[in-house]
Order: sequence, then C-alpha cells, then structure tokens
Amino acid sequence: MHTIFEERRNRLRERMAAKGLDAVLISYAANRFYLSGFELHDVQGNESAGHLVIGADGRDYLVTDPRYCEAAARCLPRQNVVLYHRDSYKVLADLLRSLGVRVGVEMDALSMNFMRVLASSAPQLALESCDGLTEELRVIKDNVEIEAIDKSFALNHTMLFWLEKELKPGLSEKDVSWIIERFFRENGASELAFPSIVAVDQNAALPHALVSEKTITNNSLVLVDVGCRVDDYCSDQTRVFWIGDDKDQRYSKTLALVRKAQEAAIACMRPGLSCREVYAKAYQVFEQAGVAKAFTHSLGHGVGLETHEKPSLAPRSEEILEPGMVVTVEPGLYYPKWGGIRWENTVLVQEDGVRIL
Amino acid sequence: MHTIFEERRNRLRERMAAKGLDAVLISYAANRFYLSGFELHDVQGNESAGHLVIGADGRDYLVTDPRYCEAAARCLPRQNVVLYHRDSYKVLADLLRSLGVRVGVEMDALSMNFMRVLASSAPQLALESCDGLTEELRVIKDNVEIEAIDKSFALNHTMLFWLEKELKPGLSEKDVSWIIERFFRENGASELAFPSIVAVDQNAALPHALVSEKTITNNSLVLVDVGCRVDDYCSDQTRVFWIGDDKDQRYSKTLALVRKAQEAAIACMRPGLSCREVYAKAYQVFEQAGVAKAFTHSLGHGVGLETHEKPSLAPRSEEILEPGMVVTVEPGLYYPKWGGIRWENTVLVQEDGVRIL
Repeated sequence: MHTIFEERRNRLRERMAAKGLDAVLISYAANRFYLSGFELHDVQGNESAGHLVIGADGRDYLVTDPRYCEAAARCLPRQNVVLYHRDSYKVLADLLRSLGVRVGVEMDALSMNFMRVLASSAPQLALESCDGLTEELRVIKDNVEIEAIDKSFALNHTMLFWLEKELKPGLSEKDVSWIIERFFRENGASELAFPSIVAVDQNAALPHALVSEKTITNNSLVLVDVGCRVDDYCSDQTRVFWIGDDKDQRYSKTLALVRKAQEAAIACMRPGLSCREVYAKAYQVFEQAGVAKAFTHSLGHGVGLETHEKPSLAPRSEEILEPGMVVTVEPGLYYPKWGGIRWENTVLVQEDGVRIL
Repeated sequence: MHTIFEERRNRLRERMAAKGLDAVLISYAANRFYLSGFELHDVQGNESAGHLVIGADGRDYLVTDPRYCEAAARCLPRQNVVLYHRDSYKVLADLLRSLGVRVGVEMDALSMNFMRVLASSAPQLALESCDGLTEELRVIKDNVEIEAIDKSFALNHTMLFWLEKELKPGLSEKDVSWIIERFFRENGASELAFPSIVAVDQNAALPHALVSEKTITNNSLVLVDVGCRVDDYCSDQTRVFWIGDDKDQRYSKTLALVRKAQEAAIACMRPGLSCREVYAKAYQVFEQAGVAKAFTHSLGHGVGLETHEKPSLAPRSEEILEPGMVVTVEPGLYYPKWGGIRWENTVLVQEDGVRIL
C-alpha cells in the first residue's frame, strides 16, 4: 500500500545520504503531497496542514493538528502520525532531535519567524537548506504521474474541442471563463490548475490578462489559456480562436508564425539538449521573420503537481532535457494595440524525442 | 480615486510613526490587497505577484514583474509602479534604501531565503518585524468592507435556502459540494471562500471533513459549512439538515442545545467584552448539559478578506470585542460514531451589541 510514496521517499533518502542529512522537514505543500499523499494544499495562506518528517534511518512521520489526524492516518500508519496543539514547534523539535542532528529544511518555503522559533526550540539541531532536493525528483515524472497527467490533458483537449462551438459574440471573458470551469468540473476535474485566461482582442496582448467584462464581438480574436487538475495533476494549454467570418489577415499570418516556432522547438526536443537551445529554436523562427521583439516571455515550463515547475525553457536556462520531463511549449507574439497570439502544447520528453500530451 | 486604500495606508503610516519605521515592505497577499487593491492572491504557492512598499513620508510603490504592470497601474500612479525582472532583490533593496533605514518586514510571511537575500542586498538597512501591523487594522472593518461582507452573506443565505430543497437521498457529498459551488458562482461569487465541507452522518463528527463519495440516504444528517467570496470578501456559515421523515431524536436534541449555546454567546456580545468570555458563555451551556467534552474547537474567528482572521473566540483569548469586528459564532458537538452538529452565524460587532449578518 502507498508504495509509490514510499518509493519516492526512498529516492529522497538516497539524496539525503549524499548530503549527510539525518532528517529532512518537508513543509512545502506540493512536496509534502508528492512524498506522502498528504494534503496537496494548505487551505489558507496563513495556515499549514502539517509537515512531513523523513528520517535517514527509514522512520517517517506526518506532524499535524488534530483536524487532519484522519487524513494523515490514510497516508502513514497511525503510530507515525504525530499531533500538535499549540506546541507545534516543541513537537517538531523533539521529533527531529530523536532522528539526529543534521536536519534539512526548506528555507524557500518556511517563514523567517518559523525558522527562528524552530531554531530556538531545538538549539542542538544543525538546520541547513534542503531547497530543491524534492523538486529535483519531481522534475522527472514517474508512471503514476504520467497516467494522471495524461488524463488531465485529455480533459483539457476535450474541453477545448467543445469550447470552439460555444464561443459567440456577446459572451464576455468572464462568461467564457465560467463555462470553461464548469465543463472541467462537471467532467472529472477537481479544480482549475490556475485561474483561466480568456482574453478578447487587445486584451490578448497581455500574456497574463485578468478576465474582464469585455465581450466577444463579430470578428474577435479570443485567446484561451487554461488548465484543470485531474487526479491531482495539472494540465496547461493555450489556443486562439477567431470568432466571425471576416478573419483578420494579420491573425492568420501571426498564428502561422507562432505555430511554426512551436513546431521547430518540438521537433528538436530530445534528452541531452539544453533548455536554452530549445528556446533558441523558437526564437530563431521569430528572428528570421523580424518579429523577435514581440516574443516577450520564455518558451515553456514544467507541469505536474503545480502549473509552474522545473525545467524552464528560458534564454539562459542550462537545464538539460531528460526522459520523464513534462514541459509546455508556448511561443507567443504580442502587439499592445492589436492583440496577441500564443499557442501552447505540453510534451513528455522520452528516450527518442517527445510525445505531445 | 482609490481613496479607501489611501486612507488605509495613512492609518498604517500612523502606526509606522509610532514605531519609528521609515518604510514597510508588505508582501502577504491579503495585506497587500487591503492597502492597495493590488492582487488578492498569489497565484502559485511558489510565486509572488509583487510587493507594496509604504514610505513614512507618503511615497508608496508597487514593486512587481512586467506581467502585473497593467494591474498595478490601476492601483497606484504609473510612476509609483516599479518593475523588476531577475533583479527583484536589488530593486527592492534600492527602493527601500531611498526611503530610509528602519524598514518593517512581514517575517511571518517572508521565507528564510527571501530575508537572507534581501538583507545581503541591503546591508545598510535595519530590517525589523512589522508582523500584525496591517492585521490589526484589518480586524476593524470599514464601511466599504461591511458592504461587501453583507453581499457575501446575503448570497450565502440565499444559497442555503435554495439548497435545503435540493438535498435528497442518493446525492454524494461531492455532488452536493459541486451544486453549492455552481450556485455561488452563477449568482455573483468570484470563488469559494474555502473548500466546502459537506459531511453526511458519521462524517459530520470531523470538524474539518473532506468531501467524499458518501451518499445521503433516507434519514441522513447532512452538515454543510460553506463560504463564498463576493466583491473580494468572504462569508462563512454552517447549517445541518435532516433528510427523511424519521428524524433522529438525538439530532433534534443536540441541535437545540447547539443553537442554545450560540444564542447565549450572541446575546452577550458587545464592545468591551473579552473573546474568552464569549467562548465561556457557549461552553457554560454545554457544561450544564454535561456535554462540554464534545465541544472540541474554539467558538469562532474573524472573517474578512480571509476566512480565518482575528479575533479568535478561544478559551484563552484576551482579545476584546470592538465595533467593526466581524466574527463567526459556531458552537458544535461531535460524537465519533454518530456524527456532529455545528451551527454557525457570523455577526458584526456594533456600539450596542451585534448585528447578525
């Protein structure tokens, strides 16, 4: 039972051994879930659902408050669930102390005040950074993850196919955003992966537009960048649609160029290539067309339990593609007074290239 | 324009002056929004939408990346929007330095690594905690906030009235959770305030149950604890329903006792009373009935931009009720093998007592 989470913890233990750590404290929600199956979200910005403690010697614990006792006991044996009330720092400090001295903590995720109180509750501990340790595992997706990601993208494709027939003049960005969310939720998604972007005409010139009351007119450009979460995993795709019979020539020309850039990037992707080389392939297409200045963001990012993960297909990214990486490829061209075109697919890196999800 | 946000920043400036601070760096999303109207949410757990910098001398800035430039410029004049790319720490450090030396930062919200890099980017600055400074303002709601909170609770009441007729045997907790969310979203809410709790029979014994596939049967207890967000403000209410004609006597008796405890607490609430005295009033009702052990959580919490705010109606809370506080009153009794009853209203503290929202 729960072997996938045990497997992942054991892989982390190998990395802990290489660093000489006696234990690590996992507090960042997505990492905690990845390694234990416990609570993917901290519900409120100011409240943690609990911590995962991983011992080098194989003892693992979920440390949480009584509200989450049942949920934790579904992930680890009940004797490995440790509850705190108002004494969370003392409970964590005592438990960590029982596992050793050198303890890795996620300094990117833990607040300054948390670190201060923990350190003063456990003066014997040597607390050091283990930032990135879990994220480096998460960048390579295992089979359980790929299965969930496939489902999430299948629903995303289904929704986009359905949506094309629903888009019509008079609908506002907010209207479209809501019918997208409703479709996702009524067809198997637990939630959106991120707030949907639905941008009409000039609004599409903003790569991260907020949905507004702006409505589709006869002959509008509509950019839709959306993701859902299925079996805990995110999908992320962007499409543009032309609504109306009088298609803008600039729309067709720009779209063709963006898709050409995407195809060039996808065609070159294979294990061993650096992420900046993939970016360069797409950039080159825009440069040759004299429009590179309108390509204002990076080419892509990893997707998994979170929408934005490693690696980054950025101009200076030295990360190297490896089998099991799941990466968006999303070139775009933006013209403030006119609008913008982005086209996004996500690919799984495999031994011999990529599979488009 | 934007006078409410300016007013709030000016009230914060008075508190900064009392502490001798030259500037504060506001990074916690709800505080940032409260003081500027800029981005209530940080979209991903690992990404900030930006920071608000408040100068003692009246100069205020939003510091963000280019994606949020337009959104920031809707909240502050464009010359007060400062953009960073990969140099966020340097940009923040230089800006803070230009405002003075003593700088308050939110050490509850900022990560250990953020604090380290900021401190090393600005060795001349004296960084000190300003935790709670904004939250102490937020605890007293102003008229703009009360208007939004009223709307949010009005929709919550409307939904609960509608829901009662929809609940029927065969529906699962997940089904009910989704029709609640859909009703909220199709009637003016931007999102849920928190993940809905829909708990059938024994599941109602967990104060924070996750929705499951468990279905309502003929003669079921259904506990619904839900909130929506309207005009940025949260609502939070709990009701229990009996589905079926053969109402459990224990259900009726327990519900009557819980409502009696709630009424006793609400009847005593007025400015000047301590929060622990309010808790004690409800506790006393349960104690006299010999069931106090089944009341396992605090009596209530503040509600506003977040679902859980100050004050806390907890057994040891020394906080004092003041006009303008918005607080839930939610006694509950829980019996693991049977189920649980909670009944929750939220009240606005006024000069002469409270108004039930």
